[in-house]
Order: sequence, then structure tokens, then C-alpha cells
Amino acid sequence: MNGNNDSGRSGIPDGAEKVSTAVIRRLPRYFRYLRELLRQGRLRISSGELSKLMHVTATQIRQDLNCFGGFGQQGYGYNVKYLYAKISEILGVERGYRAIIIGAGNFGRSLSSSTLFDHRGVKLTALFDIAPEVIGKTINGFCVLDARKLEEYCAQNRVDIGVLTLPRPEASGMAARLSKIGIRGIWNFTGAELELEKINSVVETVHMGDSLMTLCYRMNKAESDTDKKQ
Amino acid sequence: MNGNNDSGRSGIPDGAEKVSTAVIRRLPRYFRYLRELLRQGRLRISSGELSKLMHVTATQIRQDLNCFGGFGQQGYGYNVKYLYAKISEILGVERGYRAIIIGAGNFGRSLSSSTLFDHRGVKLTALFDIAPEVIGKTINGFCVLDARKLEEYCAQNRVDIGVLTLPRPEASGMAARLSKIGIRGIWNFTGAELELEKINSVVETVHMGDSLMTLCYRMNKAESDTDKKQ
Repeated sequence: MNGNNDSGRSGIPDGAEKVSTAVIRRLPRYFRYLRELLRQGRLRISSGELSKLMHVTATQIRQDLNCFGGFGQQGYGYNVKYLYAKISEILGVERGYRAIIIGAGNFGRSLSSSTLFDHRGVKLTALFDIAPEVIGKTINGFCVLDARKLEEYCAQNRVDIGVLTLPRPEASGMAARLSKIGIRGIWNFTGAELELEKINSVVETVHMGDSLMTLCYRMNKAESDTDKKQ
Repeated sequence: MNGNNDSGRSGIPDGAEKVSTAVIRRLPRYFRYLRELLRQGRLRISSGELSKLMHVTATQIRQDLNCFGGFGQQGYGYNVKYLYAKISEILGVERGYRAIIIGAGNFGRSLSSSTLFDHRGVKLTALFDIAPEVIGKTINGFCVLDARKLEEYCAQNRVDIGVLTLPRPEASGMAARLSKIGIRGIWNFTGAELELEKINSVVETVHMGDSLMTLCYRMNKAESDTDKKQ
């Protein structure tokens, strides 16, 4: 633990060098719950209450937050607004990242209409595609641009995140291209496993099918347990 | 470990009572990689090769698969087709689950056009909404049905999974309704935290925003590390 020493505008204290993936994966959950508490006008919450709400142990919460310097005062619980601001900082919300979507098919379009980005401080600036019948169309307020002119656009506009919603076989080539342009984050929805050694960007791949399979597993398990009891 | 004794058609051996969430979350990954190997015509793979491909240790793979009875032969590696079939069974792929989507907005529509379901043995049978201007329309080959007639539809058709893509404030009420009808699985995309105590179904919630936040965290961390070096 390193007290409350932050390191510049990243909000990540120096002690946070070796924060485990599991903790990092839980941070967005804290962000969501705290946002909800703020909405409800809550000013303070004890780790016990937060624990009950989030279905994690109070010890776990204290341990998680201690990775970033604590933020709680013994006996006083957490200041909701302060904790939310701190976690937002750690998560890079205040960096004001700018994103583009590549692939204006059904899924890309639905993402472009979502509040996902806005609610997390990320500004969506453009939608790209290569199909002539889509280029130039306005979708959810975005004019679809020609993906062949990606380099040109990125030279003129700051882009931090490329969202891949194009067909899977094109994912790897596009990721390499984005990385070469200097785009630092790739949010990959194509299902392709990108070869990270070849890409100089941070990659986050979403496998929605894995979540469906987990659901099916748990249903199958529940049925099989019921069968056994009968 | 319980040898290779399966328990009936669930594919889940009796020894699998206490398989950890982490292992369960990894199973769909095995499923994906094995499917890809099958596509490439591979017949056998050693745990070493599979480990390299999946970026997990060979020990991890052996431990994971041992939770379900092993499936490998010392020195011979894994039979790809057999292992794929076994994991499919464990994941309930062969149960032939049937799903409906509730909420024919942008995201619901894009899901209905996805191969996500088909590729995992889940049959999508209908799309529901409450907006008069959408009901009766054909979207991706599905006629949008009136969500008020959900009970009627489910009485006449087997439905195992309800996919929630409706507005967040309606999620909790709809989940309770689906559970009451007897729908056993709920795949929740609304961002709402469903109160599991009140719902008698298996619930899997997808928070796509959490994945975006994780990406932002890692970008922020990388930037902050670079700042420090300079």
C-alpha cells in the first residue's frame, strides 16, 4: 500500500504496478454501483453495505481498493462522490478517449446508438465501412466514412480506440493497420483471436458467445442435478 | 477426479459438483479453439500445443479438463473431435436449447442476425416487442411478436432462454415474468442488476461497458507508465 499518492493525471498511484487482472476486472463494477448510488443521492457508504449490495465480501472490497491507496476512513465508510471520482480517474474516464467504429453492419450500428461510450467518458466520432452502398449514409447521426481513408481521418483527428465490428476474416489485418496508425486501444467484437505479438496496441476482445455458453452450462448443470434428485 | 463416468445426457460427470466459476468461464474458450482446430482438420493435439495456442499453461489445461474426467491419454495428447464433443456435451450444446429475444431495438435486431446462437446449438425462434410500429414487422426473417402475448407463445412453444434487450427499467419486471412462465435461462443485456433471489432462473448478465472500461484502464495505465519513463 502506498498511501494516497497519485502519480499525475492517470489517477493510478505508483503502488499499482502489480494490480491483478481480477482486481482490474472488478473496478468497472465498482464504477457502476457507485454511479448508481450517486444517482440515488447517497453521500456515504460503509464497506459492509457496499459488500451486501455488490455481493462481494467487505474484506474483498477493502483489499481491492487498497491496491489503489484505500480511499476509506476507518469507521466512516466511503465518501461515494470521492470514491467514484477516484475510480473514474483510475479507469481513465477523464482522459476523454475518442473512438471510431469500423464495420457499419448490424452490430456496429447498434453500438453507435448506444450510450455505452458517453457514460464512460469516451467520445464516438465516426463510423467506417467499405461497402459503397453504406458509405455516405447517415446512421445514428454519424456519416459513414470510407474505411480506405482511415489513415487520412486519423491524421486529421485524434483517435484513441478502434472498435472492430467488421467480419472476422478482416479483423487481423485491420488491427495491424490501426496499430500502425498509432491507435492505442482496440475493442474487438469480431470473435477473431488477434495475434498480440504483432500488434502494438492494447486489445480487449469480447466473446459474447462465451457468455451464452456459460449460461447454457449452468442450465444444463441445473437440469442434470434435478434429474439426479428425481 | 472420477474417471470417465458421465451422468446421463448432461455430459457432466458426477464429480463435477464443485467446478469453480473460473473453470466454467474457460470452457467456452476450449470450445472455440477446438472448433477452430476441427475446421483446420486437426485430429490430435498435445496439451503443450494447446497451451501455446491458448496462452495458458499445460498444467492449467490438464487441471481444467480433469474436473470433468480428463479426456487425454498420457503421451498421446487429446483427440480433437472427442474432446470437442465432450466439451459440447458439458456446455449443453446438444440440449438444443431454444431462445427468444425480448426487445427488437437496435441491439436486439443485431443479435437476431448473428450466428452466435446457431454456432452453439441454440435455436432462436422469435423476437418480441411492445411498440405497435414494430409488431408484425419481419426482421432478419423473424416476425416481431407482441410481448403482451409472451405467455401464450410460451404455452405453445418450448422456450428455454429469454434474451433481454429491452430498456433497462423494464428488465426486472420482464425477468420475473419469464421466470414465472418457467423459462429457465435469462441472458441479460440491459445492464440492470437483476435481484436473483426473486428469480427462479439461471441469469447471465453481460456488461459490455465493463469491457470498455477495462480497455480504458489498460490504456491509461500504459500511458501513465510511459509518462513516468520520460
